[in-house]
Amino acid sequence: MMEVISLRREFHKHPELGFTEFWTASKVVEILESLNYKVLYGRDVIDEQSRRGVPTQNILDEAFSRASQHGANQTILERMTGGNTAVVGVLEGKRKGPTVAFRFDMDALPIQESTNAEHFPFSLGFNSKFNGNMHACAHDGHTAMGLALAERLANRDFCGTLKLIFQPAEEGGRGAYAMTQKGVVDDVDFIFCSHLGLDLPLGEVHGGNSTFLASSKLEVEFHGVPSHAGGTPEKGCNALLGAATALLNIHALPRFSGGITRVNVGILKGGTAANIIPQQASMVVEVRSDKADICDELLNRVYKIIKHSAEMHGLTYETKIIGGSTTIQPDPELVSIVLQEAKKINGFTTFKEDSDVSVGSEDASFFINRVQELGGKGTYMNIGSPLPAPHHHHEFDIDENVLPLAVNLLENIARRMLS
Amino acid sequence: MMEVISLRREFHKHPELGFTEFWTASKVVEILESLNYKVLYGRDVIDEQSRRGVPTQNILDEAFSRASQHGANQTILERMTGGNTAVVGVLEGKRKGPTVAFRFDMDALPIQESTNAEHFPFSLGFNSKFNGNMHACAHDGHTAMGLALAERLANRDFCGTLKLIFQPAEEGGRGAYAMTQKGVVDDVDFIFCSHLGLDLPLGEVHGGNSTFLASSKLEVEFHGVPSHAGGTPEKGCNALLGAATALLNIHALPRFSGGITRVNVGILKGGTAANIIPQQASMVVEVRSDKADICDELLNRVYKIIKHSAEMHGLTYETKIIGGSTTIQPDPELVSIVLQEAKKINGFTTFKEDSDVSVGSEDASFFINRVQELGGKGTYMNIGSPLPAPHHHHEFDIDENVLPLAVNLLENIARRMLS
Amino acid sequence: MMEVISLRREFHKHPELGFTEFWTASKVVEILESLNYKVLYGRDVIDEQSRRGVPTQNILDEAFSRASQHGANQTILERMTGGNTAVVGVLEGKRKGPTVAFRFDMDALPIQESTNAEHFPFSLGFNSKFNGNMHACAHDGHTAMGLALAERLANRDFCGTLKLIFQPAEEGGRGAYAMTQKGVVDDVDFIFCSHLGLDLPLGEVHGGNSTFLASSKLEVEFHGVPSHAGGTPEKGCNALLGAATALLNIHALPRFSGGITRVNVGILKGGTAANIIPQQASMVVEVRSDKADICDELLNRVYKIIKHSAEMHGLTYETKIIGGSTTIQPDPELVSIVLQEAKKINGFTTFKEDSDVSVGSEDASFFINRVQELGGKGTYMNIGSPLPAPHHHHEFDIDENVLPLAVNLLENIARRMLS
Amino acid sequence: MMEVISLRREFHKHPELGFTEFWTASKVVEILESLNYKVLYGRDVIDEQSRRGVPTQNILDEAFSRASQHGANQTILERMTGGNTAVVGVLEGKRKGPTVAFRFDMDALPIQESTNAEHFPFSLGFNSKFNGNMHACAHDGHTAMGLALAERLANRDFCGTLKLIFQPAEEGGRGAYAMTQKGVVDDVDFIFCSHLGLDLPLGEVHGGNSTFLASSKLEVEFHGVPSHAGGTPEKGCNALLGAATALLNIHALPRFSGGITRVNVGILKGGTAANIIPQQASMVVEVRSDKADICDELLNRVYKIIKHSAEMHGLTYETKIIGGSTTIQPDPELVSIVLQEAKKINGFTTFKEDSDVSVGSEDASFFINRVQELGGKGTYMNIGSPLPAPHHHHEFDIDENVLPLAVNLLENIARRMLS
Repeated sequence: MMEVISLRREFHKHPELGFTEFWTASKVVEILESLNYKVLYGRDVIDEQSRRGVPTQNILDEAFSRASQHGANQTILERMTGGNTAVVGVLEGKRKGPTVAFRFDMDALPIQESTNAEHFPFSLGFNSKFNGNMHACAHDGHTAMGLALAERLANRDFCGTLKLIFQPAEEGGRGAYAMTQKGVVDDVDFIFCSHLGLDLPLGEVHGGNSTFLASSKLEVEFHGVPSHAGGTPEKGCNALLGAATALLNIHALPRFSGGITRVNVGILKGGTAANIIPQQASMVVEVRSDKADICDELLNRVYKIIKHSAEMHGLTYETKIIGGSTTIQPDPELVSIVLQEAKKINGFTTFKEDSDVSVGSEDASFFINRVQELGGKGTYMNIGSPLPAPHHHHEFDIDENVLPLAVNLLENIARRMLS
Repeated sequence: MMEVISLRREFHKHPELGFTEFWTASKVVEILESLNYKVLYGRDVIDEQSRRGVPTQNILDEAFSRASQHGANQTILERMTGGNTAVVGVLEGKRKGPTVAFRFDMDALPIQESTNAEHFPFSLGFNSKFNGNMHACAHDGHTAMGLALAERLANRDFCGTLKLIFQPAEEGGRGAYAMTQKGVVDDVDFIFCSHLGLDLPLGEVHGGNSTFLASSKLEVEFHGVPSHAGGTPEKGCNALLGAATALLNIHALPRFSGGITRVNVGILKGGTAANIIPQQASMVVEVRSDKADICDELLNRVYKIIKHSAEMHGLTYETKIIGGSTTIQPDPELVSIVLQEAKKINGFTTFKEDSDVSVGSEDASFFINRVQELGGKGTYMNIGSPLPAPHHHHEFDIDENVLPLAVNLLENIARRMLS
Repeated sequence: MMEVISLRREFHKHPELGFTEFWTASKVVEILESLNYKVLYGRDVIDEQSRRGVPTQNILDEAFSRASQHGANQTILERMTGGNTAVVGVLEGKRKGPTVAFRFDMDALPIQESTNAEHFPFSLGFNSKFNGNMHACAHDGHTAMGLALAERLANRDFCGTLKLIFQPAEEGGRGAYAMTQKGVVDDVDFIFCSHLGLDLPLGEVHGGNSTFLASSKLEVEFHGVPSHAGGTPEKGCNALLGAATALLNIHALPRFSGGITRVNVGILKGGTAANIIPQQASMVVEVRSDKADICDELLNRVYKIIKHSAEMHGLTYETKIIGGSTTIQPDPELVSIVLQEAKKINGFTTFKEDSDVSVGSEDASFFINRVQELGGKGTYMNIGSPLPAPHHHHEFDIDENVLPLAVNLLENIARRMLS
Repeated sequence: MMEVISLRREFHKHPELGFTEFWTASKVVEILESLNYKVLYGRDVIDEQSRRGVPTQNILDEAFSRASQHGANQTILERMTGGNTAVVGVLEGKRKGPTVAFRFDMDALPIQESTNAEHFPFSLGFNSKFNGNMHACAHDGHTAMGLALAERLANRDFCGTLKLIFQPAEEGGRGAYAMTQKGVVDDVDFIFCSHLGLDLPLGEVHGGNSTFLASSKLEVEFHGVPSHAGGTPEKGCNALLGAATALLNIHALPRFSGGITRVNVGILKGGTAANIIPQQASMVVEVRSDKADICDELLNRVYKIIKHSAEMHGLTYETKIIGGSTTIQPDPELVSIVLQEAKKINGFTTFKEDSDVSVGSEDASFFINRVQELGGKGTYMNIGSPLPAPHHHHEFDIDENVLPLAVNLLENIARRMLS
């Protein structure tokens, strides 16, 4: 039998950034295949063009080689070229029934892991072998849970279809959307997504989480005309003047009476030399709201500001969505089922219907919204673990005792939904 | 015989702002008619729609009544309603010849004249009777010179046609353009314009003046959507955000390598209350250059900034040219003639081809450019007078000794050109 | 016996803006004195220097004369010069007990009242006699209620002290603060404030209202150096560049995670002419939050932006608070008493602990906060009336049937608190 | 005898950027020493701390190694560590007399040289061996001229002292200032600086060049406080808001009536991620004027804008001058001598007192100004050569026939000044 904690440690050692989860995804494929799941992966389960914020070819190539050198299965790898690292395992039960999906995210973060003696993964020697990357958001645990769940149900003693979704590039909200565009959840009746940690006490579970903000991340390129700033300044079209005008006006977007708003121009870069009218500038913008329609409206207004800031200075421009997510409205029926099943498990002690901690944005929202749009139901659970350091911190870690608890919970839910 | 100094004092007593020169223009008409000139005035010599910066009807009405109360000829006045206060006197010589024009401006400034005992017009009692207005730029002298010249040539002992142009609203560059649009100088072969003062020594004359900057003055109205700033800020379209963005970007227009540039947003007004998203804003912009094409290009860029600053914030807008002028390139042939004739007159002692003092902008430029465009020639002379205080100062005055000198010079020029 | 509806109509006919309530306040004084209240008014109950947004002397003088011409008591008026139109009526009960205050606001709005036949005050002939002003926020009703309450308790058959506060200049948040600065509520144990209308059904009462936003309104004057924009632009210090920079950066202040924020630059005016570098600009800024400390922090940041926008351009500046208010946390004990007493009154049918409609900001907050700060308790009630048009609309009106209901409620509360 | 054309080709092959002229400077030292000049170099002739825009240690180290590998004298190199690549050769004449200096700049540009068959240096095989660098501004020729001149005067048959200044880092205006700070020209009576090329016809010489703009280049670092843009935006201090405000206001600096102005924010970079309030931003600013005092005043105003844009947003900041130059007023006496000597040389055909082409900025200005400040005289000559492509272009080249002509001219001048 697979041991979820050992698995988690294997994944922890091999942290890979979004769309470069070559090692991770190929391990997932191998294990699912060994359990006789029907395994779809690569371009079969992700719409290549709909992916957001895909790394450069160089970065993809390096990660690909690294995975290969670290023992990833070459045949599997070949079907994931270009960063198409999504995996879906499907298992038909012995009897007919609904399709029930669980979703797990696989990507890590560009953080140098702590080598402090008190950092548990380091002291036990399962810290990151991929320098500069780190599983600092529990996705290693998520992936391990998914595989452990796969094993528990592998005997097919259930009614309906089990669908295990292993998603790349959750960080930045970049992978889920492209999988929904490929129709991965179009046949799903019920979907369960979850997150470990959140610095909740061990044993606390939230049946739903409605606190996620919708978000959009936008990359903008402004193109102007360079000119010598001393010689012929009037012949230039100044990309930084356009960008600075956009930046100020984006931050000056109004508050909305209908919900929370957030705007940020997180990055601005432009120009080449003191004496050249800047020809080019790039900008990264983020908007958020607790209401999906307000987030959309903010994005529309950002587009308008960019367009006119550019044209005011004779610039052309391009925009590209590089990430995003939407809000989640958990279905009360599933929230209730999660809590009922959790109560049956020794070790869970605190039960809440909704989250009382906010964790920002989550692109599982695209899966849940798509399922609900087609008449199904979904929820997003928080499964508590205390933390020595916050999410995305270089000393982040989970209490591994949460892992078997979480697998038990998912198994209970799966068996109930597929009974 | 008319006395130029007495005339000047009469005009000094009755200073009228641009397009309200009802008293002044009607006196000019009366005198020219008494000298048997053919006198065209009102809508016959100015294109009503092309006038810029016309005062409100209230202001026009008040000035009209004031002129009437101060003895202006009612019949003449009636043909100047609406502020059409332009006058042209034409006299055919006894023999055929070219058409030679002289131009005089008639308007005063919104300045409260000094009542300091040392202010000469006050001490002699010919200070402004029209409270709040003042002839502080010598146009009273110009108008008087024009009428004195009219008398000198009244016997028609010359070849060709003499055309005396009395222009309203030179200040702000508002009257000349509309007169050229009516074709007032389309038949002119030679045109002479001039200015008294400039704090040059008495006896100094400049045959040309190429130092004027082209300028355009623009009024902008931004229209947005008001909304309660606390209740529903997102429903507003904020006219002041658009205007402030335009203001900063207009001032940030590039320097030009080909010439001098100037930009200014001289006035900005918008909004109604602390708690209302501003629905409306108005702005007055000015651009200048020593090159007419750079001035045009600056104006184009201002239009572009206004358009996109407005549309960025969902505003509509209107723009209106409220004043302007262009550059002057005096014809060397006329410059030379001016200096030759000045040298014949006792009292002129210093002779320069071009101005070495800059006096900003001048809409006589439209007359001169139009004449040159149609194949004629023109120049703009400086006729020096020392000043107790600068132009546009409430203690401005000229040395009246310049007046007979200037009339002699204009007569000489007229006789030479019409010989 | 005084009739509350007749009284309301009298006040409706004589609407006076903040700090010009000479007619209204003198009537209040007269009636309270006739009921044998101890009446304090003028500078005795308001700190003259702490008042915000006081009108100019001209406006005060005109309103003063108007009140006099409409029959206001001259002796009383003389003690209200300078716009010190606050009134407090105090009545000692026959026995000892707590001090219980009720607060009523008296000012009207600069709105031209409708003369539409369907506008009830017009059709009954009690529409505004003070052209341009209108009671469009129910303060006429509030003042009438206060006087009716005064009569009900006039026999002194209670324990403790009744304090009736008639406040000027609630609109814009300008009067209450200066009364608290004079110590008007420093001896108060319980304070009840209320508002009629809100388009709630007749019979609905809210025992508390915690929805008010804290707000501050700020006036800013920027002083620069003028200069000719063509001649010597570099000698100017451009007040509009400073103001536009401040405006953009104020709107770009961050959202706060701890509460709602609002920012608005509602008015900006500066400059005098197209060709003058603007010497002066004035600005009106408003900030709001549902948390008083966030509102304070926003104001601090606005000050910082103004300071540095000014100094960046060599400007000096002055700021002045012209209005404001804070949040209200009703005491649950009083909320409960209000609802208990309302339930005893025939006509009240719907009872809520807190408001479910937001009416912006309220400077009664200063009274309530001061009482609570000194250990007392307070609440703010909504007393529902349907409305033909929203608050501050020129066809606003209340259903007068609410008035006797409201007086009954206040009487019940007063008797209970003073029993 | 050294051949100036061969020397120029050697230097052309080894182009080195400012402060990395290790190969070039060490060759200069070797040759001057071989001619029995007293050679001062390294920290003896440049004030290390006053240098501007010094490359990083990495870049210095790489260039140092490269020079070493290409045969530079290791002993000499060791005295130039840290990029102290300045050289001064001094030769005492046989008799007493004035000190006469000539200045030559040695640095190349970060341009990939053309490998087009028609590019003369490439077709003859003396193109750049230092990949990515190129002598595209004739400094290779200048250095060769300096050494050829050294040889011509090596017999010491003159009165006074000859001082040959070989300056690093002229591009960007970074080297000359630090040499003047070390006092290198404090004993100089006459200084001659020159430039080859300018696309003037071969044989044209300008005795002076007064067209250089004063310039200052400034690097700014803004330091704020990062914060999660979704979670707690109010806890951040946004470095990009400060930088964008500075950028717009710097571009909005006024035109000056007293001279030409230029302003440019050439580079702006800040922020790290879409969801982080930007903690840091850096900016490169350039100002220029044809009047040194206006350039200083522009720089003062830029400092003021930076200070207040930073403090407005709670940022700290640092500024550093990374380059600059000032204006040059050639002494008429030296201009005249240059032209007289040129006329004696067969090959020079066109003689002008001042430049009629503008070549931007030149930090030889610091040498000339310092000499003049101490009572000496100086000039800057243009020595014409037609060009196949403009200065700083990857196909730039000079007509090598100018080199012997130029050496003859410098020799004539030296002999005359030292006679």
